[in-house]
Amino acid sequence: METADGRPLVGITMGDPAGIGPEIVARALGRPELYQSARPVVLGDAALLARGAEICGLQLEINVVDCPAAGRFVPGVVDVIPVTALSPAEIPFGRVNPKAGRACFEYIKKSVELALAGQLDAVATAPVNKAALQAAGVPYLDHTQAYATLTGSTGVLTMFVVGDRLKIFFATRHVSLRQAIAELTVDRVAEVLVLADQALRRFGFAEPRLAVAALNPHAGEGGLFGNEEFTVLAPAIERARGAGVRAEGPIPADSVFYLCLQGKYDAVVSLYHDQGHIAAKTYDFDRTVSLTTGLPFVRTSVDHGTAYDIAGKGIARAESMAEAIRVAGEYARRLQAASRPTTGG
Amino acid sequence: METADGRPLVGITMGDPAGIGPEIVARALGRPELYQSARPVVLGDAALLARGAEICGLQLEINVVDCPAAGRFVPGVVDVIPVTALSPAEIPFGRVNPKAGRACFEYIKKSVELALAGQLDAVATAPVNKAALQAAGVPYLDHTQAYATLTGSTGVLTMFVVGDRLKIFFATRHVSLRQAIAELTVDRVAEVLVLADQALRRFGFAEPRLAVAALNPHAGEGGLFGNEEFTVLAPAIERARGAGVRAEGPIPADSVFYLCLQGKYDAVVSLYHDQGHIAAKTYDFDRTVSLTTGLPFVRTSVDHGTAYDIAGKGIARAESMAEAIRVAGEYARRLQAASRPTTGG
Repeated sequence: METADGRPLVGITMGDPAGIGPEIVARALGRPELYQSARPVVLGDAALLARGAEICGLQLEINVVDCPAAGRFVPGVVDVIPVTALSPAEIPFGRVNPKAGRACFEYIKKSVELALAGQLDAVATAPVNKAALQAAGVPYLDHTQAYATLTGSTGVLTMFVVGDRLKIFFATRHVSLRQAIAELTVDRVAEVLVLADQALRRFGFAEPRLAVAALNPHAGEGGLFGNEEFTVLAPAIERARGAGVRAEGPIPADSVFYLCLQGKYDAVVSLYHDQGHIAAKTYDFDRTVSLTTGLPFVRTSVDHGTAYDIAGKGIARAESMAEAIRVAGEYARRLQAASRPTTGG
Repeated sequence: METADGRPLVGITMGDPAGIGPEIVARALGRPELYQSARPVVLGDAALLARGAEICGLQLEINVVDCPAAGRFVPGVVDVIPVTALSPAEIPFGRVNPKAGRACFEYIKKSVELALAGQLDAVATAPVNKAALQAAGVPYLDHTQAYATLTGSTGVLTMFVVGDRLKIFFATRHVSLRQAIAELTVDRVAEVLVLADQALRRFGFAEPRLAVAALNPHAGEGGLFGNEEFTVLAPAIERARGAGVRAEGPIPADSVFYLCLQGKYDAVVSLYHDQGHIAAKTYDFDRTVSLTTGLPFVRTSVDHGTAYDIAGKGIARAESMAEAIRVAGEYARRLQAASRPTTGG
């Protein structure tokens, strides 16, 4: 869908309207620089988005359109496809609300429909609330599960994009630390390496260099502090190498993210949730964007929640949302560039 | 020992001379700014230090003195107490050498002797090699153990000092991740909170605010991803509070270090080695200094090893060594200021 305009069309799902979604979307789109590299269009609710803009004290024109390409895409104007038409009175801030849960699921479905039809190049999602989704009877607990199922995708992974240099894949996610250690098998780590390699190649990283973080301090110090480096990680890296993946490691976890930031690797495979999260968010809290790989289109997300406690107060910070939109555009361009046939000249 | 000069006397143990120690000590002391806030004196070997300076291409005068206060403490001059008198030919670079292991243990012992005698205000240590210490028959595996035993100290903790805002204590250290989880008991976490509180007060932090990092993702998300937050961490925090410690948590580990950097806490208690190490070294690799609390004097250390692979090449970076010297001086001043009787005016 990249037309002569050149800027990718990025659909932004407005997120749970009882949370900070409408505020951070409005505030992010109040930044003129976002329009330099993307054509953003909100999939949401015109009245609720207008409320979010007003709460933030932003003078933005809400421009209702019926398809992405019809947007005006100029700073000061927010183009919106009205997926729902709720009245603000129906959606008080800060409470789990089945109407809000249902609404944000409708935004997600609309984004899938438009992206699969080629009317969007990428999707950036504002946060949803698990309890609200459940209250609305939505059969998915989170975005990643919903996008994977609605697009029929397998081999989906989460990749953190932290600024320009640090990218992180996760071998396990939302389980206890004990459970994460138990889930680390040669099969799983090798699979993640292969999927990460495929994902990066698809985004135009030629021969991506992947590093696997170690599980134990000093990568186990030769077996003195744990043996998963020998029993799980080394064989998994070996197997992935056999499949053509440029994998290295295990590298001590307190060095590997730094080395990636220094340019030694393209991405790091984190073995458990906090390993990669601590690195990303301590390094740059606001510029940690989550990108789902393995979908037919680019999908990014903020890495925070609906923040019901501050919703409606106009104080939510939009740095992460703005970065999610920027990264969605960047990776959509990467995808387009990498899938274009090379002409040899 | 802080005389009219005002600048604390900081002894620098030269570290394993087969490693990068002499080079990074010489290079750190080649920075004139270090002399503004400290009077550094090397406990080491004049000939080996001269070799280190030469390798780094530094024009430094090696000034041999017999006690710390006799130093000249001016940029361009490195004051050295010659603890050993080895010839460079005896200590080739990059090899485990009992003579080198014995030498660096002698530097450590000298630093303890001088600091306990009040002739040094603080000690900053260059790296030792475990294998070399063992080859020399030294009965300690690392610095922390040696300093604790030689000074008869109990309740010793490691505190990372990362720039001005981030400080990290460790509830467990060099054990496998599985073992670290097993070692997390209410007793241990409460003990660390009490010791950390005492240590910070000793350094002049009034009513220090301590945060305990969570073990599981999202601090366990209400028990969904693990229960140590309920069974271990909350009761430990409760107990420490009962003892007058301003402890908060458990806080999700991907936020707690960021919040400390934002000024919300004075320090974070990390539950396992990599949790705090990833945060510190991804945030600022070169400015991560290890400080041993609970000793009669301030002792800091670089958080890297002897780097035998690059020893003698003149390429080792001295940022961390310089920062260890700077922090030793800063905390010596803190200790002096906090232990001075207040005059009420």
